[in-house]
Amino acid sequence: MKNSPVLIVGSLAFDDLEMPSGTFEDVVGGAATYSSIAASLLSPVRLVGVVGKDFPESVLSDLRARGCDTAGVEHADGKTFRWRGRYAPDLGSRETLDTQLNVFADFRPKIPASFKSSPFVLLGNIHPALQLEVLAQVEKPKLVFADTMNLWISTEPKLLAELMTKIDLLVINDEEARDLSGIHNILKAAADIRKRGPSRLIIKRGEHGALYFDDAGAFFAPAYPLEEFLDPTGAGDSFAGGLVGYIAKMGDTGHQTMRRAMYFGSALGSFCVEGIGPRRLLEVTRGELDKRMKAFTALVETGGPVVLPE
Amino acid sequence: MKNSPVLIVGSLAFDDLEMPSGTFEDVVGGAATYSSIAASLLSPVRLVGVVGKDFPESVLSDLRARGCDTAGVEHADGKTFRWRGRYAPDLGSRETLDTQLNVFADFRPKIPASFKSSPFVLLGNIHPALQLEVLAQVEKPKLVFADTMNLWISTEPKLLAELMTKIDLLVINDEEARDLSGIHNILKAAADIRKRGPSRLIIKRGEHGALYFDDAGAFFAPAYPLEEFLDPTGAGDSFAGGLVGYIAKMGDTGHQTMRRAMYFGSALGSFCVEGIGPRRLLEVTRGELDKRMKAFTALVETGGPVVLPE
Repeated sequence: MKNSPVLIVGSLAFDDLEMPSGTFEDVVGGAATYSSIAASLLSPVRLVGVVGKDFPESVLSDLRARGCDTAGVEHADGKTFRWRGRYAPDLGSRETLDTQLNVFADFRPKIPASFKSSPFVLLGNIHPALQLEVLAQVEKPKLVFADTMNLWISTEPKLLAELMTKIDLLVINDEEARDLSGIHNILKAAADIRKRGPSRLIIKRGEHGALYFDDAGAFFAPAYPLEEFLDPTGAGDSFAGGLVGYIAKMGDTGHQTMRRAMYFGSALGSFCVEGIGPRRLLEVTRGELDKRMKAFTALVETGGPVVLPE
Repeated sequence: MKNSPVLIVGSLAFDDLEMPSGTFEDVVGGAATYSSIAASLLSPVRLVGVVGKDFPESVLSDLRARGCDTAGVEHADGKTFRWRGRYAPDLGSRETLDTQLNVFADFRPKIPASFKSSPFVLLGNIHPALQLEVLAQVEKPKLVFADTMNLWISTEPKLLAELMTKIDLLVINDEEARDLSGIHNILKAAADIRKRGPSRLIIKRGEHGALYFDDAGAFFAPAYPLEEFLDPTGAGDSFAGGLVGYIAKMGDTGHQTMRRAMYFGSALGSFCVEGIGPRRLLEVTRGELDKRMKAFTALVETGGPVVLPE
């Protein structure tokens, strides 16, 4: 069914960003925030997460104006989750300076009744026990996407192994794929991870694009090359949001839809990094997205089959 | 004209390779060798370089059997150029342990009369003064390709600036593009370099593919992902050889032919890294190349336009 809703569960946060271009504090962030902003450009979104008393109501009303149902955002006593990080001058790496879990420490996702039959589910990078709790509450989604990170790969291997058997698509980066599989070669790592459960797998490589694997084989989509690259925060979450948003819009999970979705994920990620925090992503219009998709596909267009003459 | 000959000028060498998989000595190498092996799978090649008394005649006769005219390979008194390098365990970087220029120290390229009207010229990475000497000897080639390296960028900026105005296409890696332009952003670096002369530019990114720039815009071709990756030596030179070989085979230098050529360059580079030295590259058949091109294009196939429905 076209224009299906997407259930997105994950963190809403404040980020303090020490960038080469300056320090930006109290920037609205969190994986679920970025994914929801990106996905809601394409499909209705149902958001589940937790915020503290300090989280501006205007951010949630802006999300609602984008077609994002915030009925699943719990308001808890205390402060919102906060992350402080410093990026390298070339933005190629970052270090965490401070993490304050705050209200996120006791977060237990509660899926509103009206959200339970969502056909598409995106489990942002939270503790795998919480990701499993979400899956216990939803009713036969068509496709479950999940993100994870090195922390859970090393500290929660059993829960993660269980999660693997209950999701359809895992979205991780190449370092995480190597850690999870214990295999350096990316094709071999992908084959190993797919054997653990998810029939579909995306391995993100940042500015170097992303690989997708399913029963039809491997697929590669580049990152869109940019002249302005300001802040990588949230790019991977915007990628996941754009990906699932396109699939929900098309209402189809076929091999070719998935491949095209990789470009939409990549395009949303490219908008994200053009501004500090979600600033740029928030202002992207459908017209701008169409224009970027045109430029993006021109980047890979060969004008015909790439074969040798007889 | 289809099946045009390619003039390739550059180094023929012995490499001593300290690889994670073992140490391999007296491996036949050199940029012109790799480029010639790759290009000769697609088009006739005319090779110009120098070897010492120790260079096996069998290597040259094997090249001739592939359609590579070796009349421009000078036999000098002394030993062949030799390079010894050690690769990191993940093959992601290498250090030079020893360079013996030997007969290469006094090399002055002499283009045989029968080679002077070659429509396509590939100037391998040698001193820019020698690259200019080659161009002074040839007669109006259709397209001149040139490679260079950081050493010449820092030590011979004036000669390199002159070379830039006399070539059609520069093939370098991203680090070299940044050094040459002094600009970190790759799109801005590309625009800067194209202003210096070459209307076409390729920026190689190793396992992350390559970007091509011309008046029609930017184009990206990925690297072919491999399960077996043994030795990166010569991959860039094989890429350049495959690229120019395809263009010479098609006898066309149009924007779309160039874009398709990027895939042939990438495919030849992918064969190269599957074996130590040029071992694997030498055994590749036309049938194997066709098969790889099929798998390679499947890797990027979206089955239709990547656009949003109305």
